Amino acid sequence: MKPLSEYIRSIPDFPKPGVIFRDLTTLIENPEGYRRSVDLITEAVALWGPIDKIAAPEARGFIFGAPVALQLNAGLVPVRKPGKLPYKTFGIDYELEYGTNRLEIHQDAVLPNERVVLIDDLLATGGTIAACRKLLENCGAIVVGAAFLVELVDLKGREALGDLPIFAPIKFEGE
Amino acid sequence: MKPLSEYIRSIPDFPKPGVIFRDLTTLIENPEGYRRSVDLITEAVALWGPIDKIAAPEARGFIFGAPVALQLNAGLVPVRKPGKLPYKTFGIDYELEYGTNRLEIHQDAVLPNERVVLIDDLLATGGTIAACRKLLENCGAIVVGAAFLVELVDLKGREALGDLPIFAPIKFEGE
Repeated sequence: MKPLSEYIRSIPDFPKPGVIFRDLTTLIENPEGYRRSVDLITEAVALWGPIDKIAAPEARGFIFGAPVALQLNAGLVPVRKPGKLPYKTFGIDYELEYGTNRLEIHQDAVLPNERVVLIDDLLATGGTIAACRKLLENCGAIVVGAAFLVELVDLKGREALGDLPIFAPIKFEGE
Repeated sequence: MKPLSEYIRSIPDFPKPGVIFRDLTTLIENPEGYRRSVDLITEAVALWGPIDKIAAPEARGFIFGAPVALQLNAGLVPVRKPGKLPYKTFGIDYELEYGTNRLEIHQDAVLPNERVVLIDDLLATGGTIAACRKLLENCGAIVVGAAFLVELVDLKGREALGDLPIFAPIKFEGE
């Protein structure tokens, strides 16, 4: 069986010189690669106990968060950029390499003490998911863990997430 | 059984006065509403014959396109805004109410004569999906149909899509 990592395309010098971009579009365009990836994440998250909601940051987080939510019989909470959500929102500002970013969720997207797992395609510096975690916890949710398909180990995203359980089966490092 | 339309929240005056925004976040945050919606779209698309790829515009298109692709054993082609895709792209510019927009796909996202279905959450004026159709057809794909959960009937999106088969089970009109 082909290793899942072999469905991923590596693109040098994107988005800037010296960076290797791990392109998952070649994986999700392949039904076997996509199916196996979603099942793998689903099984790992199921080990964390009952889950009420999957929260996923736009846009690539939806690609894995949506099917995993359905397979776990959980709701999907979209975490979006400012101005996208039509109802009352809670937001959080966080630091990027250059400047700041903001993420929002609807105020009624989670209920107090609901068990939530965060899902994105790839763990890099962890800044986005750390912000998602704080935003959900500010709303009273219990953030149970964070799951990704890929981890860029050298960027130390786990450190940004402290003691949060993390699942990220495909590792790239040393580049 | 609760009608699917009742999972949808209507928000007056968003994004501008006089417009009623149909908010699907309340549907996807409910596991039963989300599951039933995805199954309904999947069954309708399956009637169109074998499908190689689902193409979905970011970001909300991924929320329905991703799980439908998996259930149909098809690949998922993300149709994205400029600058998001790391590999060589084909793009299309199209007119909006004010100004223009651009969408892109990877040049190898579809093969000639692959059968593709377009999926988005909601059919409004049809501008985005008409652009997606043209972009995919420019790449040699056979666009078999377009599926949505919701149709805003008064905006006449079907006219923008000509003879393309359309599935959109929940209709809102007369407002």
